[in-house]
Amino acid sequence: MHSFPIHFHPTHSSGTMVAALLSDLATEVIIPVCAVIGILFSLIQWVLVSRVKLTPDRNGPSSNNKNGFSDSLIEEEEGVNEHNVVAKCAEIQNAISEGATSFLFTEYQYVGIFMVVFAILIFLFLGSVEGFSTKTQQCTYDVHRMCKPALATALFSTVSFLLGAITSVLSGFLGMKIATYANARTTLEARKSVGKAFIIAFRSGAVMGFLLAANGLLVLYLTINLFKLYYGDDWEGLFEAITGYGLGGSSMALFGRVGGGIYTKAADVGADLVGKVERNIPEDDPRNPAVIADNVGDNVGDIAGMGSDLFGSYAESSCAALVVASISSFGINHEFTAMCYPLLVSSIGIIVCLITTLFATDFYEVKAVKDIEPSLKNQLIISTVLMTIGIAIVSFIALPSSFTIYNFGVQKVVHNWQLFLCVCVGLWAGLIIGFVTEYYTSNAYSPVQDVADSCRTGAATNVIFGLALGYKSVIIPIFAIAISIFVSFSFAAMYGIAVAALGMLSTIATGLAIDAYGPISDNAGGIAEMAGMSHRIRERTDALDAAGNTTAAIGKGFAIGSAALVSLALFGAFVSRAGIQVVDVLTPKVFIGLIVGAMLPYWFSAMTMKSVGSAALKMVEEVRRQFNTIPGLMEGLTKPDYATCVKISTDASIKEMIPPGALVMLTPLIVGTFFGVETLSGVLAGSLVSGVQVAISASNTGGAWDNAKKYIEAGASEHARTLGPKGSEPHKAAVIGDTIGDPLKDTSGPSLNILIKLMAVESLVFAPFFAAHGGLLFKL
Amino acid sequence: MHSFPIHFHPTHSSGTMVAALLSDLATEVIIPVCAVIGILFSLIQWVLVSRVKLTPDRNGPSSNNKNGFSDSLIEEEEGVNEHNVVAKCAEIQNAISEGATSFLFTEYQYVGIFMVVFAILIFLFLGSVEGFSTKTQQCTYDVHRMCKPALATALFSTVSFLLGAITSVLSGFLGMKIATYANARTTLEARKSVGKAFIIAFRSGAVMGFLLAANGLLVLYLTINLFKLYYGDDWEGLFEAITGYGLGGSSMALFGRVGGGIYTKAADVGADLVGKVERNIPEDDPRNPAVIADNVGDNVGDIAGMGSDLFGSYAESSCAALVVASISSFGINHEFTAMCYPLLVSSIGIIVCLITTLFATDFYEVKAVKDIEPSLKNQLIISTVLMTIGIAIVSFIALPSSFTIYNFGVQKVVHNWQLFLCVCVGLWAGLIIGFVTEYYTSNAYSPVQDVADSCRTGAATNVIFGLALGYKSVIIPIFAIAISIFVSFSFAAMYGIAVAALGMLSTIATGLAIDAYGPISDNAGGIAEMAGMSHRIRERTDALDAAGNTTAAIGKGFAIGSAALVSLALFGAFVSRAGIQVVDVLTPKVFIGLIVGAMLPYWFSAMTMKSVGSAALKMVEEVRRQFNTIPGLMEGLTKPDYATCVKISTDASIKEMIPPGALVMLTPLIVGTFFGVETLSGVLAGSLVSGVQVAISASNTGGAWDNAKKYIEAGASEHARTLGPKGSEPHKAAVIGDTIGDPLKDTSGPSLNILIKLMAVESLVFAPFFAAHGGLLFKL
Repeated sequence: MHSFPIHFHPTHSSGTMVAALLSDLATEVIIPVCAVIGILFSLIQWVLVSRVKLTPDRNGPSSNNKNGFSDSLIEEEEGVNEHNVVAKCAEIQNAISEGATSFLFTEYQYVGIFMVVFAILIFLFLGSVEGFSTKTQQCTYDVHRMCKPALATALFSTVSFLLGAITSVLSGFLGMKIATYANARTTLEARKSVGKAFIIAFRSGAVMGFLLAANGLLVLYLTINLFKLYYGDDWEGLFEAITGYGLGGSSMALFGRVGGGIYTKAADVGADLVGKVERNIPEDDPRNPAVIADNVGDNVGDIAGMGSDLFGSYAESSCAALVVASISSFGINHEFTAMCYPLLVSSIGIIVCLITTLFATDFYEVKAVKDIEPSLKNQLIISTVLMTIGIAIVSFIALPSSFTIYNFGVQKVVHNWQLFLCVCVGLWAGLIIGFVTEYYTSNAYSPVQDVADSCRTGAATNVIFGLALGYKSVIIPIFAIAISIFVSFSFAAMYGIAVAALGMLSTIATGLAIDAYGPISDNAGGIAEMAGMSHRIRERTDALDAAGNTTAAIGKGFAIGSAALVSLALFGAFVSRAGIQVVDVLTPKVFIGLIVGAMLPYWFSAMTMKSVGSAALKMVEEVRRQFNTIPGLMEGLTKPDYATCVKISTDASIKEMIPPGALVMLTPLIVGTFFGVETLSGVLAGSLVSGVQVAISASNTGGAWDNAKKYIEAGASEHARTLGPKGSEPHKAAVIGDTIGDPLKDTSGPSLNILIKLMAVESLVFAPFFAAHGGLLFKL
Repeated sequence: MHSFPIHFHPTHSSGTMVAALLSDLATEVIIPVCAVIGILFSLIQWVLVSRVKLTPDRNGPSSNNKNGFSDSLIEEEEGVNEHNVVAKCAEIQNAISEGATSFLFTEYQYVGIFMVVFAILIFLFLGSVEGFSTKTQQCTYDVHRMCKPALATALFSTVSFLLGAITSVLSGFLGMKIATYANARTTLEARKSVGKAFIIAFRSGAVMGFLLAANGLLVLYLTINLFKLYYGDDWEGLFEAITGYGLGGSSMALFGRVGGGIYTKAADVGADLVGKVERNIPEDDPRNPAVIADNVGDNVGDIAGMGSDLFGSYAESSCAALVVASISSFGINHEFTAMCYPLLVSSIGIIVCLITTLFATDFYEVKAVKDIEPSLKNQLIISTVLMTIGIAIVSFIALPSSFTIYNFGVQKVVHNWQLFLCVCVGLWAGLIIGFVTEYYTSNAYSPVQDVADSCRTGAATNVIFGLALGYKSVIIPIFAIAISIFVSFSFAAMYGIAVAALGMLSTIATGLAIDAYGPISDNAGGIAEMAGMSHRIRERTDALDAAGNTTAAIGKGFAIGSAALVSLALFGAFVSRAGIQVVDVLTPKVFIGLIVGAMLPYWFSAMTMKSVGSAALKMVEEVRRQFNTIPGLMEGLTKPDYATCVKISTDASIKEMIPPGALVMLTPLIVGTFFGVETLSGVLAGSLVSGVQVAISASNTGGAWDNAKKYIEAGASEHARTLGPKGSEPHKAAVIGDTIGDPLKDTSGPSLNILIKLMAVESLVFAPFFAAHGGLLFKL
C-alpha cells in the first residue's frame, strides 16, 4: 500500500469543522447494543416458531391450547390420522434437513480448501508488496504519521478474510437450519388457517434476517476493535486490513450461490421434466425420486446461498464505506463516531426492521389469501419510511456538520445533510427497484398476464415475450441506479456511493425475512404434498408460495441494485488505493478491459446455464431409470431411491461450481498481474455495467415465467381460465417457460451480482500488489 | 465546429517527412477506375444470371444450349409439364418481387418523411453553432489558416446526409431487385445440378456485393471531389461535412434492418406456428396464406436490410477514417494520396474480391452438396490472404514512411508499416470471428449437435443449451476485437481503429456476395415447394440453404465485429471534435452514461422482440382464420388470400419500426443537448461494450437453433437419426427453438450493430452543436 507515489497531502485544517454530537463512548455502546437486540429479537421469534410441535401430541388436537393457539383445527384431514400426518411431516422435514446439512458439509469441505489456499495467497501477495519487511513506513495519505508495515496489512487482511468467510458460511448454514426447522411447522399451521401459516413462515424468515444482520454487524464491530489494539492510530492500515472481511464474505457467497443454484435447479428441472411432463404426476409428488433433492435445493440455494450473498453485500458495502472514510477527514482526524457512521446506519436499521416486523406479526393480521401480498409489500414501505427518519437522526447526530472526503486526489467538502441524502437515495432507489420488479413479475399486472396470454400460440411465443419482458424490466431499475449514482457521487464521491449502497441494504433484516419466507413456503407446500394432506392445505401453501415468488424476485432486485452500487464504491476504493487518477475510456488499456469485462457475465452465464442443463439431463436419466426399473413406484407401493438423486445434485454442483468460481476469482488476479491496474479498472467497470443488465433481465424473466404458469394454474380470473386448466396446451407452453426460467432466475442471474462485487473487492484487497508489481505484460 | 477552445497547434515540421510514392493524379485515377471495374464485373455477373430464361422455351429443354449450358436436365420433373413449371416459377417470383417492391416503396415513403425532417434538423442544429453566421473563421486544428463558416458545414453535412441516405436506399432496393430476379432462376437450375444452382445463387450475390461496394465508393469519391470545389484548402471542414454521408447511410440502414426484420420474422413465425405446428403442412407450402409474405420478408429483411446495413458500416468507417485523417499531418499538409488511403484500401478490395469470386465460379467447381460449405469458406480465406497483400501494397505506396496523427490533443508519429498492421489486424480478426461463428452455428461441429441432442428432453433444455451456446460464442470474438483494438489503438490511436474497421470491411464485396447467397437459396427452396417440384429439387435447395444459414451467421459476425470497431472510431472522432480530453469513468456524468448506455441494447431488443411477437400473433390469427373460413384451402383446391398477410406484415413493420428507431435517433440528441458531451461519451461507450455481446449472442443462438433443427431434419449421421425424423418429439422441440431464434437472429441481433454505430455517427455529426450548446441540464 505504501509503494506508489503519494498524490495529495491533506492538511489538518479540517479540524476547524464542528465535531459530531454523538460521543465516541456512546457510539462504542450503541453499535453492540443494537446488534445484541437484533440477536435477542431473532431468538424470541425462534421460540415462537418452536411452539408449533412436530412431535405427535398424545392428548390430541385440543391440547393445542398449550401452544398459545387457542383455536382448534379449522378443517380435519379427510381420512388421514392426525398423529400420522404430524409424524410424516417430521420425517420429511428430517430428510430435507439431513440432505441440506450433508450437502453443505460437503460443499464447505471443498470451500474450506479454497479458503486456506486463498488466505495463503493473500498473505503472500500482500506481504510481497514491501518484500515482507517488518519496518513501519510513512503513511500514504497522511505523510506526517508513521503507518504499520505492509506485512501487518497482509497478516490482518488474511485474518479478516477468514473471519468474513466463516461468518458468511455460518450465516448460510444457520439460515438453512432455521428454514428446515420451520417448513414442516408452516405446513402444520396451514391446517388451521392461512394467516397462522403465514405468521410462522414470516417469523422464521425474521429469525434468519435478524440473526444475519446483527451477526454481520457484531463480528465486523468486534474485528475493528480488536485490530485497533494493534493498529492504534494507523486507521489507514486498519481499514485496509478490514476489506478482507468483505472479500471473505463475498467469496463464500459465490460458491454458495453457484453451488446451491446448480444443486437446486438440476433437481428442480430434472424432477419437472420427468414428473410433470412425462409421467404427468403433480409437483412434489413423493413418487418422484428427485423430490427430496428438489426440496433440499430450495434450502441450500435460495436460503443458504442468498444468506451468504446478502451478508457479502452488507460486509462489502460497510468495508467500502470504511476504507473510503479512513482517508477522509474522519480518518485523518481520528473522529471515531463519524468514522463509524456506516455501522451506526446498520445499527439503527436493525431497530427499524424490528418495529417493521411487528407490523406483519402483531399490528396487522393476515386473514385471507389476498392479504398476503399487501402485508409483504407494506413491510417494504414501512421499513423504508421509518428508515428515512432513522438515517436523518444518525446523520445529524453522528456526523460533523461538514467534513472533507477525498475524490481521487481532490479534497471535497461535504455537509451532513448531503450524506443523509446519499443514504436516502440508495434506500428509496431500492424501494423503486422492488416495486418495478413486483410489477414485472407478479401475475396481478399486465406484463405477466401478457406472457401468459402468449402461451396460446405455444412455447415459442411465450419465450419471446418472456425474454422481451426481462429486457424491458431493466429500464427503470437502471435509471434508478443511475440517479442514485449521480446524486451520491456528486455529493460525496465514492463515499457517497458506498453509503448509498448501505442505505439500500440498511433494511436488510426485513429484506432477508421476506426473501427467506418464499423458500420456506415453497418447502411447506412440498411437505403438504408428500405427507398426503388434502388439496385445500396445498392451495393455502401455494398461495403463500406465489407471493413468495414475487418477493424472491424483489429480493433479487435489491441484491442486484445494491451490488451495482457496492461494486462501484469498491471500484472507486480500488482506484484510489491503486494510485490511479483517471480511468480514461480513450486509452487502449482501459477500453480492452471494458469490452472484455462486459463479456464476462456472458461467459459466466454460459458456464452456469450449461452446468444446470447437463446436471438436469443426468437427473432426468436417473429419475427415468427409477420409474422404469423399480416395480410399483408409479403406483405408490414402493419408495423411490431419493438418496441417489441427492447424490447426483451434490456431485454435479460441487464439480460444476469450480469453473465459474475460478473465472471470477482468477480474472482480477490475472488481469491485475499481467495487464495492470488500468486494464483491471476497465474490466471492473465493464463487468459492472453489463452484468447488472444481464442479472436483472435474467431474474425477472424467470420470475415472470414462473408466475405466468401459476396464473394459468390458479385460474383466478376469466382470462386465466380461458388459458387453463393444468394440462392444457397453453399450460404446457407455460411449463416450458418456467423450466427455462429456473436456471436464469436461480442460478445465473443471482450469481452475477456476486461476480461484479467479488471482482471489485478482490481487486481492492490486492490493489497494493497490483500497483507495485502488476502489469507484467506491458512492462516487458 | 469552431466554438470550443483550441487544444493543440500542429506545426508544419511534419513536412520534413517523406511523401507517398503514389502521385495525387494516380490516386485520382485509381479510385474511380476500381469502382467502375466493380460495377462492370457486377453487370457481367448479372448478364450470366439472366441467361437462365424464365419464359417457357418453345423449343423445349434441348435448346438450353443457346444459354451456354450445354447439358440437358439431369432429371425430368415427374408428372409435371416443363412449361408449366417454368411459368409457375415466374409467377411466384413476380408475386414475391411485387410484394417486396410494394413494401419497400411504402417503407421509403415513411423513411422519406423522416429523412427530410432529419435533414432540416441537421441544418438547424449545425447552423446554430455560430448563429447562422456566414463569416469565415480561424480553423480549429490549424490556427494559421482560415476555415469555412459553420453554416457551410451545416449545409454540406445536410447534403452528404441526403446522399448517404439515398445511396443506402438504392443499395437495399437494388439488392432486393437482384435477389428476386435470381431466386426462381436458382430453382430452375437446381433441376440440372446442385453445382449449377449454386453458381447462379452465388453470382447473384456477387452482383449485389460488387454493385454496393463499388457504388458506395464511387458516390463517396465524387462527393469529396465536388465538395472540394467549394471547400478548397479547408479539409477540416470538408471531411467534417462528409461525415453526414455515414449518418445518412446508417439511419436508412436502421429502418431497413428493423422494418425488414420485423416484416420477415412476423411472417416467418406466423407461418410456422400455424403451418408447421398446428396444420402439419411443410414449410413454404403454397396452401399457407403467409407463405408469400415469408418469402417477401427474406428479400426485404435479409437482403435489403443487410445491404443497407453493410453499406452503412462501410460509409461510416470510411468517414471515421477520413475525418480523423483530416486533422493529421495528411490533412494539415494537404497530402491527397495519403488522405485517400481509406478509399484506396477499399478500391484494392474490389479488385481482390473480383479475383476471389473467380475461385468460386470458374477455378473451382461445386459438384456435390458437400462442396458447398468449403467453397464458401474458401472465399473468406482467399479474400483475406489476397487482401493482406493488397493492403501491403497500398500501405507502402500510398503512405509516407512516417507521419503524425493526433491522439486527443497529443501528436503521435506513425510509420506506414504500423498502419499496414492496423488494417491487417482488423482483416484477420474478421476472419477469426467468421470461423468462430461457423464453429458455433454450423451443424458440422459439436456445439450445435449438443443443442440438437438436448432436444431429447424437450424444448426447455433446448432453449437453455441454446442460450448458453450464444453466451459462450461471445468469448473469442470479443478477444479478437479487443486485440484488434489494442494493436490498432496503440499504433495509431483512433485512426488505427478506423482503418482496422475498414480492413475488416475491405472484402465487403465477397462478404455481401456470400451473405446474399443465403436468402436467395432460401427463396429458391420456397419457390420449388410452391411450384410443386419434386422433393429431390427441394433437397438440393435445402442443402444450399443450410450452408446459407451458416454464411448468414458469419456475415452477421462480420457486421457486428466491424460495427464495434467503427463505433469506437466514430466515438473517438466525436470526442476529438467535441473537444473532450479524457472520458473518465470515475466522474458521475460519465458513469451514469455508461450504465444507461449499456441498458439501451436491452430496451431496444425488448421493443423489437415484442414487435415481432405481437405481429406474429396477428399473423397467426389471420392464417387460422383463412384455414377455418376458406373452404377447400387445406385440400389445395382454393388459393389462399396472400395479400392480406402481406398487408399485416407491412403494417406491423411500418408501425413497429418507429419506437425503436426513435429510441436510437433521439438518444444522442437528448443526452447531448440536456446532459452534455461527457454523459454522451459514456452512453456511446456503454452501448458499444454491452450491445456487441447481446448482438453476437443473439445471432449465434438463433443460428444454432435453426441449424440444430436442420441437423435433425437432414438425419445425415447416426446421432441425428436417433433424434429425428420430422415430427418426432425432439424435432418438435427443435422447431420451438428455431422459432424463438428467428427474432433474435434476424431482428434484434443484427439491428443492434446499427444501434451502436448510428448513435456514434450521429453524435459525431452533432458534436459541434453539443460542444457549443449542450448540457443544458447541468448548466441550470
